[in-house]
Amino acid sequence: METIQTRMADEIATLLERLRERRPLIHHITNLVVMNDTANITLAIGALPVMAHAAEEVEEMVEAAGVLLLNIGTLTPELVTAMVRAGRRANERGIPVVLDPVGAGATRLRTASALRILEEVRVHIIRANAAEVGALIGNASEIRGVESIALGGDREEIARAAAARFGCTVAVTGAQDIITDGRQVARVHNGDAMLGRITGTGCMATTLVAAFAAVEPDAVRAGTAGLVCMGLAGERAAAVCQGPGTFRAALLDAVANLDRARIVAGAQVEVG
Amino acid sequence: METIQTRMADEIATLLERLRERRPLIHHITNLVVMNDTANITLAIGALPVMAHAAEEVEEMVEAAGVLLLNIGTLTPELVTAMVRAGRRANERGIPVVLDPVGAGATRLRTASALRILEEVRVHIIRANAAEVGALIGNASEIRGVESIALGGDREEIARAAAARFGCTVAVTGAQDIITDGRQVARVHNGDAMLGRITGTGCMATTLVAAFAAVEPDAVRAGTAGLVCMGLAGERAAAVCQGPGTFRAALLDAVANLDRARIVAGAQVEVG
Amino acid sequence: METIQTRMADEIATLLERLRERRPLIHHITNLVVMNDTANITLAIGALPVMAHAAEEVEEMVEAAGVLLLNIGTLTPELVTAMVRAGRRANERGIPVVLDPVGAGATRLRTASALRILEEVRVHIIRANAAEVGALIGNASEIRGVESIALGGDREEIARAAAARFGCTVAVTGAQDIITDGRQVARVHNGDAMLGRITGTGCMATTLVAAFAAVEPDAVRAGTAGLVCMGLAGERAAAVCQGPGTFRAALLDAVANLDRARIVAGAQVEVG
Repeated sequence: METIQTRMADEIATLLERLRERRPLIHHITNLVVMNDTANITLAIGALPVMAHAAEEVEEMVEAAGVLLLNIGTLTPELVTAMVRAGRRANERGIPVVLDPVGAGATRLRTASALRILEEVRVHIIRANAAEVGALIGNASEIRGVESIALGGDREEIARAAAARFGCTVAVTGAQDIITDGRQVARVHNGDAMLGRITGTGCMATTLVAAFAAVEPDAVRAGTAGLVCMGLAGERAAAVCQGPGTFRAALLDAVANLDRARIVAGAQVEVG
Repeated sequence: METIQTRMADEIATLLERLRERRPLIHHITNLVVMNDTANITLAIGALPVMAHAAEEVEEMVEAAGVLLLNIGTLTPELVTAMVRAGRRANERGIPVVLDPVGAGATRLRTASALRILEEVRVHIIRANAAEVGALIGNASEIRGVESIALGGDREEIARAAAARFGCTVAVTGAQDIITDGRQVARVHNGDAMLGRITGTGCMATTLVAAFAAVEPDAVRAGTAGLVCMGLAGERAAAVCQGPGTFRAALLDAVANLDRARIVAGAQVEVG
Repeated sequence: METIQTRMADEIATLLERLRERRPLIHHITNLVVMNDTANITLAIGALPVMAHAAEEVEEMVEAAGVLLLNIGTLTPELVTAMVRAGRRANERGIPVVLDPVGAGATRLRTASALRILEEVRVHIIRANAAEVGALIGNASEIRGVESIALGGDREEIARAAAARFGCTVAVTGAQDIITDGRQVARVHNGDAMLGRITGTGCMATTLVAAFAAVEPDAVRAGTAGLVCMGLAGERAAAVCQGPGTFRAALLDAVANLDRARIVAGAQVEVG
């Protein structure tokens, strides 16, 4: 166990070095609430962000990208159509697509839009909370707005079911993160309760997952690397902040300051 | 006087505890400039945010909310239509509606849109600056963009007139805040000039007013509680910042760190 | 040389005092990613921001402004049409127009939209990086998303060519900033690599240039003043931050805290 964890941490550190050397472009079609944070965390981890959503340019823009990130946090039907267009072009070019189905289950529009994307685009990784993933596979859970309150069913079981259903890797975040493609499962125990005290840390985690997906074809590894980095940065930021405002600034600092030593010392990963 | 102020401060502290226990959902249909700040201050005070504006989902989303907040800061006619739809559904379900008529008076579109909302939706509380409230009741004042420069007429008189005209509570913020339903009047003397040095503190004040409106049916009390909390947080943040950037972070920290002791020690409320 | 530099620094300090006294309104029609930062830096330098993009109100709003800033960072064709309407009204009223052609060269939509604005609106100053300016005059360069990676041709030559082609002042930012109207050239050596570690510092630089353009008719002077202020603030923020998150907050602090002493001590300007 100890040995596997050390090896995993070492691999994540190597992936981070690769990411910072290659500086892949992450094309975000994303929500308006945390666009600034997701652009800044893209730079902090070592990638390049572009936010572009006009239907007239998304296909051309995505061709330059190392990964496409679709986030439905402030969706409209027009935006979802642009997402599908960009997603199909990404599929044609072999560019991985990462989906964040924010608020799936909260309204019919959100659930249906996420399912439409999953139907029309080959998605590489879904990053979501357990209630959102549950909603996509028809599981009942209590959702208020985009925050899930309670959940029916076991989180790992839900992640596995969604991976099987959509034929992709599913990264479910929470107190413990689960990343699975239905066969391999990784569990990440990093993180801090402060990550739930500001908006958009789920979206930021998706950005980190996408950044690693641009440089690592194995989706479980990419997802694990992204969530370990997010968790470690959250721990570090929580240790130095005075509340959610200074936490938000410290979180970006901590992502930028991640290095091999911090990853090896702090990564809490289990593979099963 | 002293006794009333102590009792008011005590009541506000009790309301804050109730808010943090119930964690109501605040459905924002709001402006693009400070969406991140208004979502984060929602979490900081102890409520849950959802930002959703697609006409296709606002009616379903608002049904899950404890309060609906409408802010026209970066309005379009389509967005105002979504606001009206959400507002009517909120009215049907007895969910309070809080309006922030940003920039009313600056353009015809803004004044007309705010008046349209007030005509078609039963609004519980208007939170605005005096020039915006003045514009809604046809008062002349000098406005540059969304910033009011000078004002014709007495602020308290304008607030009372608007409360009578629209049949709701009006919370006018400024060096002194005035909250009135036309009969009761509360005046809040908390705050700091630094609140005028960053964008969106008016919008954030509206969010705090809305949060309290979700747990306190008396609109004057809810408005007063929200503005006292905003003012106290502004005072605290001003004391620890080095400028507007660190003030912005410290403001969120200060809202999250508000508690009974700070409210009782600092609240400056007058009821008349 | 020394004397010219001291005189320039003195003039910039005087312009900053004039700006803070007049508090001009900057009407932004701008991108969604850094709208909050550009509004806050407007306040920090001493001007007033308004963000308004509805086609129904932009012409009326711009009439109250001291300068109009057009930024295509998250453009749509509808938004560009609103920009043209506002720009023409600004031209009629003698209000200067500043253009930030974000990502020109990255997609056909971006290049064509920037050129459309330059064709239909009389632009006073273009603020961009060298690759974007190169794209506008048909120069090849390697662009990934909205980040330029490598450049064909000399930066000063490109700036001069664009100034001649569009009949306006061009401010090209980079390790060294170049501001030219085709005859006069100023070079600013202020700044810090940290400015490239967060998103939107180019957009913020454009805002500072626009702020000075509202109070100084000489476009080369206004551009130089804006970029000196941005560079100095970046240097100061880099000295006190722990990473990009705290840099972002410190940058706003540093802009607000700029004064004559700091400008005179730090400005690195060359005029040739």
